[in-house]
Amino acid sequence: MIPVAVVGASGYAARELMGILARHPYAELVMATSRADESPTVDSLHPSLRRIVDLTCVPFDADRVAETARFAFLALPHAASLDVTPALRERGVRVIDLSADYRLKDPVVYADWYSHEHSDPGGLAEAVYGLPEIYRDRIPNANLTANPGCYTSTSILSLAPLIAEDLIERKSIIIDAKSGVSGAGRSPKLTTHYPECNENFSAYGVGRHRHTPEIDQVLSDVGRLTGEPVEVLFTPHLVPMDRGILATIYAEPKREVSERDLKDLYSEFYKDSPFVRLCEGLPGTKDSAYTNFFDMTLRVVRGRILIVACLDNLLKGASGVAVQNFNLMIGQDETLGLV
Amino acid sequence: MIPVAVVGASGYAARELMGILARHPYAELVMATSRADESPTVDSLHPSLRRIVDLTCVPFDADRVAETARFAFLALPHAASLDVTPALRERGVRVIDLSADYRLKDPVVYADWYSHEHSDPGGLAEAVYGLPEIYRDRIPNANLTANPGCYTSTSILSLAPLIAEDLIERKSIIIDAKSGVSGAGRSPKLTTHYPECNENFSAYGVGRHRHTPEIDQVLSDVGRLTGEPVEVLFTPHLVPMDRGILATIYAEPKREVSERDLKDLYSEFYKDSPFVRLCEGLPGTKDSAYTNFFDMTLRVVRGRILIVACLDNLLKGASGVAVQNFNLMIGQDETLGLV
Amino acid sequence: MIPVAVVGASGYAARELMGILARHPYAELVMATSRADESPTVDSLHPSLRRIVDLTCVPFDADRVAETARFAFLALPHAASLDVTPALRERGVRVIDLSADYRLKDPVVYADWYSHEHSDPGGLAEAVYGLPEIYRDRIPNANLTANPGCYTSTSILSLAPLIAEDLIERKSIIIDAKSGVSGAGRSPKLTTHYPECNENFSAYGVGRHRHTPEIDQVLSDVGRLTGEPVEVLFTPHLVPMDRGILATIYAEPKREVSERDLKDLYSEFYKDSPFVRLCEGLPGTKDSAYTNFFDMTLRVVRGRILIVACLDNLLKGASGVAVQNFNLMIGQDETLGLV
Amino acid sequence: MIPVAVVGASGYAARELMGILARHPYAELVMATSRADESPTVDSLHPSLRRIVDLTCVPFDADRVAETARFAFLALPHAASLDVTPALRERGVRVIDLSADYRLKDPVVYADWYSHEHSDPGGLAEAVYGLPEIYRDRIPNANLTANPGCYTSTSILSLAPLIAEDLIERKSIIIDAKSGVSGAGRSPKLTTHYPECNENFSAYGVGRHRHTPEIDQVLSDVGRLTGEPVEVLFTPHLVPMDRGILATIYAEPKREVSERDLKDLYSEFYKDSPFVRLCEGLPGTKDSAYTNFFDMTLRVVRGRILIVACLDNLLKGASGVAVQNFNLMIGQDETLGLV
Repeated sequence: MIPVAVVGASGYAARELMGILARHPYAELVMATSRADESPTVDSLHPSLRRIVDLTCVPFDADRVAETARFAFLALPHAASLDVTPALRERGVRVIDLSADYRLKDPVVYADWYSHEHSDPGGLAEAVYGLPEIYRDRIPNANLTANPGCYTSTSILSLAPLIAEDLIERKSIIIDAKSGVSGAGRSPKLTTHYPECNENFSAYGVGRHRHTPEIDQVLSDVGRLTGEPVEVLFTPHLVPMDRGILATIYAEPKREVSERDLKDLYSEFYKDSPFVRLCEGLPGTKDSAYTNFFDMTLRVVRGRILIVACLDNLLKGASGVAVQNFNLMIGQDETLGLV
Repeated sequence: MIPVAVVGASGYAARELMGILARHPYAELVMATSRADESPTVDSLHPSLRRIVDLTCVPFDADRVAETARFAFLALPHAASLDVTPALRERGVRVIDLSADYRLKDPVVYADWYSHEHSDPGGLAEAVYGLPEIYRDRIPNANLTANPGCYTSTSILSLAPLIAEDLIERKSIIIDAKSGVSGAGRSPKLTTHYPECNENFSAYGVGRHRHTPEIDQVLSDVGRLTGEPVEVLFTPHLVPMDRGILATIYAEPKREVSERDLKDLYSEFYKDSPFVRLCEGLPGTKDSAYTNFFDMTLRVVRGRILIVACLDNLLKGASGVAVQNFNLMIGQDETLGLV
Repeated sequence: MIPVAVVGASGYAARELMGILARHPYAELVMATSRADESPTVDSLHPSLRRIVDLTCVPFDADRVAETARFAFLALPHAASLDVTPALRERGVRVIDLSADYRLKDPVVYADWYSHEHSDPGGLAEAVYGLPEIYRDRIPNANLTANPGCYTSTSILSLAPLIAEDLIERKSIIIDAKSGVSGAGRSPKLTTHYPECNENFSAYGVGRHRHTPEIDQVLSDVGRLTGEPVEVLFTPHLVPMDRGILATIYAEPKREVSERDLKDLYSEFYKDSPFVRLCEGLPGTKDSAYTNFFDMTLRVVRGRILIVACLDNLLKGASGVAVQNFNLMIGQDETLGLV
Repeated sequence: MIPVAVVGASGYAARELMGILARHPYAELVMATSRADESPTVDSLHPSLRRIVDLTCVPFDADRVAETARFAFLALPHAASLDVTPALRERGVRVIDLSADYRLKDPVVYADWYSHEHSDPGGLAEAVYGLPEIYRDRIPNANLTANPGCYTSTSILSLAPLIAEDLIERKSIIIDAKSGVSGAGRSPKLTTHYPECNENFSAYGVGRHRHTPEIDQVLSDVGRLTGEPVEVLFTPHLVPMDRGILATIYAEPKREVSERDLKDLYSEFYKDSPFVRLCEGLPGTKDSAYTNFFDMTLRVVRGRILIVACLDNLLKGASGVAVQNFNLMIGQDETLGLV
């Protein structure tokens, strides 16, 4: 068994992660940290984990983590990961970071979108973007994996084959994305107060959501051999439900394509990706909720390519892919603990 | 038109109240107050009221209220009503208080359950409990009306005829009540954070909810001519929905009764109450949501009396009954603006 | 008072309609029809209407309607309106049809999308499309008004000023629309079974929803003086909530425009439309739910025009606009009974 | 691996069951049957099971089941289990029946509550009631296990220790139970149509729900050594959520008891029951949703005992306990595949 720590135990991604790790055949969850002074037990933070995780949280201490764990999953708010990652890496702990801190390769872009300087450019340079379906080869040797954002994974997995084959106009892409409320985190605020968002559907962050540069970056990298950079129009919405993201994606093809061609392309592209399910019918978020699957379907409508894609924002969009990365980093089958 | 003010404009009850008043044939909403420093417009607080209420909030000032309004509806948190009511009454403004501050006749009981002293015993002595179906005769002349709690109204209207007729054991009453989340107010907290209470059903405040002494007090008063005081066992629950309360109430009859007898009793008791709907079938909260009606049905099961009753916690349970009281206080039909 | 009948009383639009009519200052609801053999009371079909509508449904009979009512609101399924409209019009009853039967001006297009021949081409030729914000002048004299679809109204009101001014590429329009479940009607089916659509978000009818030709037709008509026909890409989705539609709409401008320009254009275009609310912030469906308002906001993002628009599908999208049409048809203010 | 069949694959309990069995270390799901003529694949019935269960349903045939499987899980409607169980048992297949057909020991009571004769009294006599926490010793050797109802398990597990110790008045018990909508099955009907039950809370089946005699029977059996039979007052309610049952239970103690005494009693009673979690705080349904745990807490309020208890109606209330029974029947740890 490989000893692992979860740094930042109080949020939803941490809860899901600890649940998966508790059942994982090779991981042993040996430590959970929390900033709270009272050292809460994990099951007081997350009653659903009673009898599943029997740990008391401790304050974060890099030495203590390094003494007991070989891997640290960081489930911290953005910017907070920057404070702990260098110390952990110096001590030889391999890090899987669920925050956004190591996702954007260009520190200037990071500073622009997250409104503070990136304090660990060395870490940033070495970090591997942890989306196995795109960067499967790089992850096994990574010592720092930047777990992708939930909207980002949905968008990239939907579009990567089209970009790789240079089939679409790169400035025509519209990503109309809808997320359950758990994506907004666990801190109460008015917009996520039940009587405000229940029976309500709304757009937010129009034109300025932080997953935009992340999508642009990875898709531009996927298409780096051909054509211009990708610049998507990304609009997130809040759906009155707990979990799940659905993206409806529109793009103009560069040449005429049939649905048959597209399906063949995607089947081939994802033939080694056990968590990608190409669907004939239109997937709903409920089909992939509580799983690590990514579901999608392709259509051609009035000459445009239309993709409908779903995943569970807390699993394939956060904690599930984190464990998928962990599996690759320990040289095992990426599905362990996840099916 | 009678000029009225709403003191405390930011919550849900205030929103509903201002919407009703905007359509009322005799009331004119001339002022809304808010503690916020920025003097927000009403429609910035409540976008649904755009083009319906065109007011900018002002800070509370008793003189200013008295200059412009003859009635003040207080939609303030508990304790805050105590701070403004005496000043308003001194200035001749008639007050309809939606908080709990003037509901409990005994200041000692108030202090026990609300954890602070009652600073206006004179007001308390004069306040009329604003449940028209029970105290219809006292309300027209009241200068201070204490609007009942939402659970309280549901419970009292369900049980009053049985108590008045001394048909049930007064310590056998169990009120198992369920409320939508708007009942918890508009301040965000973890228990009302969407991903916590959505898809969740839970009990809270078991044995110590503040509506308990209010139910006991009014039902004991209804039954003061016969028998002992009422002492209910009241259990509130939170339902993942916006609005509505349903109470399932159990009581042991003192003598055998038929459903027919009970229906006759209730029809007679409520024959002048336009908002009480006695139902043959089992009512659901959705039937009375967005209305000022109170729906209920009666059953006898295995020798026990069982009542299922519903109302909209924000209307019949708060702002609707406030306007019903207002109508009576201005000598008009109690249904004005409410159907 | 003007006597009116509701033909087809069992669905959600009929329920809302009867509720509005019961409060309307000039309409008197004198008849409700239902295909059910048992002649149900309206309040057995819709318990929320107890004490509001006191009618027993009768089977449809054109003579009987003509004897008692001057207006008939048809809340029937598609195709069923065709069976009753000619008989009503022959008898001098003015008809407001909530179905799709008289919306598409070209019977061939109707036959294509609704899979049966149009049996009343005469009626079709005379029918006025009942969207007051676009065809306000034609409605007062109409004897047959075709009430628009809910998605359609949302889409047309969002785009009409842009088309009228020829500001956008007419084949670039993407309408990504999301609707609450009441839009699917009241007949139970698996897709609207609670445990299927709750906590689920899904697309449906991709590329083949019947509101597509309706949107194309009206927008093409709005832009008939300039440029080519409109051909939208319309994608509907199902949101786990009762009511409300939100559309996120994308279009390529023909020339550079600022948000300021767009707001001025819309303010002018809708200056006489009391139910259009142009918003600074992003509207959510809850702001306009239970009202007859249409809320929208405009943005320019990465060179593209982006519109977010909402309405209540049962009110502004169905029964509210029907009463708005009725008001115009009786020569009154269009807001009567609706605010 | 032990080959097992699921008879009746289309419902929610079957879906959950097949998901658990797919991950079970000793079970191999070799057959799924369906009455549908078209032989659907399991994943066309349940898209969430794509890549998890790769089977095509076959029509039920007892010989075919017996040839390939040693166990059959019956996820059939009531009465349908009676049609297949004798044939399976004759052929040596061990049966775990999720329907109500073998739960009530007295065929007269069964006929009364289910409105048809019991055609297999022999099977009924041999059937073991499959609630491991109560009948753990009898299950290993059973060849026919009658899986308990979801409300029933919740109620029995809450009350068994009190009855066993003869601590409460047996006719004072009130069970006010609330269930998510998946408990109503997968067949669409008006009461479970989304716009009807969403934002609605309602009671149903007051005084005549079929789980009543089942609760009476088992609790009377638990208390058979002391005192009179149990006769509960059971009221079910429908909660607008997918899954989970919460029961609030009231009982009069025969003698004064403290919360401390009660907790000690329950800790001892359930010390060998890994799925019973006694909670300090009040449990919500969400804590046990998607798990096989039963959560409960005890209170004494105004002299009465009050219990709040929760479980997931599809898991601990149906498919989870079915696998728990299976584990015991194959002589293994009852938690296999369930944590």
